[in-house]
Formats: sequence, C-alpha cells, structure tokens
Amino acid sequence: MIPTLEWTKDGVRFLDQTKLPLEEIYVTATSYDDIATIIRDMIVRGAPAIGVSAAMGVALGVERSKATDIDSLTKEVEVMCDVLAKTRPTAVNLFWAIERMRAKYYALASQPDATIAKIQASLIDEAKTMYNEDIAACKRMGAFGAELLPKSGTVLTHCNAGALATCGYGTALGVIRAAVERGAKIDVFADETRPYLQGARLTAWELLHDGIPTTVLCDNMSGSLMRAGRIQAVIVGADRIAANGDVANKIGTYSVAVLAKEHGIPFFVAAPWSTIDLATATGDGIPIEQRDAREVTHSNGKQMTPDGCGIENPAFDVTPAKYVTAIITEKGVLRSPYADSMRAMMEEAETAKA
Amino acid sequence: MIPTLEWTKDGVRFLDQTKLPLEEIYVTATSYDDIATIIRDMIVRGAPAIGVSAAMGVALGVERSKATDIDSLTKEVEVMCDVLAKTRPTAVNLFWAIERMRAKYYALASQPDATIAKIQASLIDEAKTMYNEDIAACKRMGAFGAELLPKSGTVLTHCNAGALATCGYGTALGVIRAAVERGAKIDVFADETRPYLQGARLTAWELLHDGIPTTVLCDNMSGSLMRAGRIQAVIVGADRIAANGDVANKIGTYSVAVLAKEHGIPFFVAAPWSTIDLATATGDGIPIEQRDAREVTHSNGKQMTPDGCGIENPAFDVTPAKYVTAIITEKGVLRSPYADSMRAMMEEAETAKA
Repeated sequence: MIPTLEWTKDGVRFLDQTKLPLEEIYVTATSYDDIATIIRDMIVRGAPAIGVSAAMGVALGVERSKATDIDSLTKEVEVMCDVLAKTRPTAVNLFWAIERMRAKYYALASQPDATIAKIQASLIDEAKTMYNEDIAACKRMGAFGAELLPKSGTVLTHCNAGALATCGYGTALGVIRAAVERGAKIDVFADETRPYLQGARLTAWELLHDGIPTTVLCDNMSGSLMRAGRIQAVIVGADRIAANGDVANKIGTYSVAVLAKEHGIPFFVAAPWSTIDLATATGDGIPIEQRDAREVTHSNGKQMTPDGCGIENPAFDVTPAKYVTAIITEKGVLRSPYADSMRAMMEEAETAKA
Repeated sequence: MIPTLEWTKDGVRFLDQTKLPLEEIYVTATSYDDIATIIRDMIVRGAPAIGVSAAMGVALGVERSKATDIDSLTKEVEVMCDVLAKTRPTAVNLFWAIERMRAKYYALASQPDATIAKIQASLIDEAKTMYNEDIAACKRMGAFGAELLPKSGTVLTHCNAGALATCGYGTALGVIRAAVERGAKIDVFADETRPYLQGARLTAWELLHDGIPTTVLCDNMSGSLMRAGRIQAVIVGADRIAANGDVANKIGTYSVAVLAKEHGIPFFVAAPWSTIDLATATGDGIPIEQRDAREVTHSNGKQMTPDGCGIENPAFDVTPAKYVTAIITEKGVLRSPYADSMRAMMEEAETAKA
C-alpha cells in the first residue's frame, strides 16, 4: 500500500511527491493552511487525492480551532473552505469535497445538541469516510475496467492517475492493477509528462513498486509507437468530466486521444463519479489552470530557454467526448452518448438505493 | 549571421550547441576524429549541418594527413569516410556529403598530374563550396516557402531546423525568416523537443537573436493549442525523405503531423534536395537512431526516473507522406504524389542545365 496521505494523531501526513522517485520523504500538515500549501505546491496532486486532502484540511482546521462557540467556528469554517478552494482550479473533486464537508458541518452545527467537540469528531470521521470511499471506488473501477484492457499487451498512460493521485490503488493505474491481478500480462508505457514529469517520476515509481513492468517515454514518442503497433490501449485519469463527457485531464491527454483515434486504439478514462461535473455542460466551461513558466523554463534549477521567450504552461487540456471510448467509474462503465449513459447510471443507482 | 560552423586556418570551428542558450562557446576541431566526436555528441546537429561538417571532416583529415604518396592517402581517406559515416545513422545528408567528397577525391587522385597538395587544396575548396551551397539552398527554400506561410499568424515548429541545423539561415526557420523579411507578421511556437530540448534551447535562441517573437511549449501542448485555433501552420525540417515522400525527422514530428491533419492545419517540410534519398523507397526503410537512455532519465545530472524502468529513446520518427502538405526544396515546392513531383522536378532541373 502506497501511503499517499493519511490522517494521523499528529496531523495529516503526506508522501512528498515533489521528491519522488529518489527520496521518500513525508511531511505532516498541522493546519488547514499547511494543506492548502501542500496542494498548491503539488506535494500532493491528482484529482481524487486533492479532494480528500481538502476534506482532511477542513477536518484538521476544525479539530485545531480555538473557537469557543459555534458561530465563531462557522466563520472559521467558511475561511477554511475559501482558502482550500483557491488552491487549484481545474480538479472538480476539490470543490466537491469541500462542499461535502461544508454541508456536513452545517448539518452538525444545526443540531439542537451540537457541541464543538461533537462537530470535530464527526468531521474527522467524515474525512476518514471519504478516504475509505475513495479507495473502495478505485477498487470498483478496477473491477469494471479490467475487462476492457487486453489480456496481453502494452497499455499507455499519461501523467499519474495512480495510488499517488488517490488515497490508494489509483483510477487508471487501478484498472491496470486490477487487470494484472486477474492474470492479464500488461506492460505499461508511461509518458514522462512534461513539465512536472508525473509519469517519469510517479507512475514509473508506483508501478515498479508493485512489480508491473514499466517503460518511460517522452511525450512526443507515443505517436510513432502507436504507428508501430506497440500500444494496444490507452488509459488515463481525469480532473473534471463535463456533463457531455468531455474530459479535462493533464496537458497532453488530448494529443494522446487524437493519436489513439488515428490508430484505432481504444482510449479509456477512469475516474470516480465525484469527477463528473454535471453543472458544467461541456469541456469549454472547464477552467484550465495556467502554472508558473519556471516549470517549463528551468530543469533542476538550470535555465533551459533563452531570456525573452514566451512560455506556455497550461496544466490541463480538454479531450472532447468523441475521442473517449469509455469512461470507467465506480458505478459502472459509461459509453457515448455520455449525457444519456450518465443519466441512466444515476437512475439505476437511485433505484438500487430505494 | 549565426556561426554554426566555419572553416578556419586553425581547423573547423563549431558553436557548441550543447551549451546554448546560456553560453556561446566555440570548439575547434583539428582532426577528422574531432569532427566525428562533435557530430556524435551533438555539439553540431541538424541534417544539413552534419553533412557539411562531415565534408569538412574529410577535407581536414586530408589537409592534416602525413601521407607522402597518393596510395597511402587513399587508404586514409577510406578510413576517414568510414569513421565519419558511423557517427549517426538517420540523416542522409551525412552519407551524401561523404560520398560527394569521396567521389571528388577519386576524381582528383586519378588525374595524371595529381599531387597531394593539389588534392588538399581542391577538397578544402569542395567543402567550402558545399558550405556556400547549403546557405544558398536555404535562401532559395525561404523564397519558395515564404509564399506558403500565412501573412499573419502563429507557426509551430518542432526541434531546430534553423541556422544552427545548417550552415546558416535554416530550412524550416529559413522559410519563417524569409516570410518575416517579406513583411509577414509571424509568431513562432517552438516545441521544446524532449529529450534534447533543441526547440527550447536552440530554436528559441536563434529566432530571438533575429527578433522573431517566439514562445516555447512542451511537446504535449501543441494539440490543445491547435484545437483552440492558435496555430495557423506547421513547418519542420527533415533528416531523410524517402522516394515516396515519407519524412524522417526528430521524434515527435509524426505526432505533430497527425494533430495538424486532425485540425486542418497545413504541415510543411523544408529540406534541401540532398535530404531526399531516392534509394529508399518508403519511410519503413529509413534507419532510426536509438540514443542513450540517460538523455531521458537524467536532467542536468539528476535522475528523474526510478531504477529499473525501461526507457524508449528513438531520436527520429517517420511521418507518412499523406500527412505532408508540401515539401519545400531549393528546386521548388513538391506536392503529393511525391514520387511524381520529385521526378518532374529533377527532369526540369536537368532540362534547365542542358
């Protein structure tokens, strides 16, 4: 089990992903502000992991609050939620998780017998529940998705949608893990994923940790490997999925999807239902984070570009639904037209509950 | 004028491209072996520049030879040609230039009044002629190609097909320079071009040197920029063009070509006629150099991938002719079907000579 993040008695402990793969260093957040910084600086990243981290941020903030009455605590909770929501704009799981914690807080605070101590205990429980639900969702995605991967072959992934991007097991890499556990013979090609190198640093590290053979390639190499017949499927995660099935994910995902289509290779997206943003009609409505130019210009402290040149550094792109073969969620596998299959799957889930 | 390489009285002087963009350092080769190392280590790179460098290598080897009779010199020339031909496998200009020098040598050596001194002088002249022809060819490519670029807009290029890849002016970047000189308002997007970063380090440096606005992006970003309508044309160089118009060029070129097609954006190749290899029927026959894994795994001396992962590092890929809108040469612009247009252009050139 890869310990991406964990609630401990000392605070929330994170595996520092900026230091991987050569160093396994842990940092412990002791305030919600620490967690905001940890998300912003990408010590933790990946949409599901960011969501649960923010939820733990709210729980930690409430646990450590010095408020002596609920009205003061409410004001603090609003500040916490605002600060955590401003860390990164694209992954919708962040806002989903904060909203869930805020709603839980108001439900607890409005109880006639509400006390700060009870609210603290319940919010910590809620964050831990979300942590466990995240891992369970990954396992269910794995079970649904494993059937879609080849019994034998090479699967390309982009960025890191693994244990390190979730509370454990992973979304896209969870599907690969599940396929391997069921006997499939899968080699993974991992795009290095410039500029932050999540593929080279994180995906390769966690798959090799689990004994899954992994080859790192530069982002510009997958096209010619597809043309050579060396890639049988593509699977990636998602940071936000619009109501029509358009997928926002790490920059470069769109190019991989176009290349997969050109070569008749299936292109799968694996993401928990919390990544689906029904309030956003299409990918055009998804805000795309622009990150610091220095991530592109500098490499291990050394400047690689001349002074005076412009820099593009969008952290994400949008892959239109038409390029997506299927979206694997913990509720089942969605197929085009996605608006219809999402609706059907939600109705099915409601019926099952009733 | 960017001094990529130059024949001097002390030897052949090269701008060390491994040190750009932050340092402008020159190295002077005083033997053909030095030049082989300089080509292999990519102190000079780019198909046309490699060709002329190898020609100068033969001239330098003959100039510095201690042979006292022509038979001994012939044996030395064969060794020089072999050593220089083994430096890099993909760029056909290398073999073309070596063959031209070898043929010239035998023509000189078979003269009844041949002397070593005369052969030395003539081979140096031949290499200098090739140098001047290369620049003249780039200028002519520029004149033909400038018409094809938009009067105003953004042009994407991959790798470096510029003054630094030739004896001056450049092939793809020569076309951009020519368009700008004729009044076009062109911004350049330069793919950084992993793993060697020719775009980030070299293309950005030489275009900004000439005052052409340039923005560097990671190789995985161009797809979403095309989708956003921010790229009006693509132009790249070539390392070898097969008889059917298939183009070998820097790894990643194929992906850019597929993306350009998907978005209805013209994809141009600019290369001197010496890059066309009529002896190779299709791109499948072009040998693709595999380079050291360390170029991918390490960045400024620091390991970025975990121990135990596989690495892909092909230096080139092949773009099938069907993705190529036009090939710009110094003889004119080739269009599909390329085998026919190449034949017609050669016949035209023969007729013009006669």
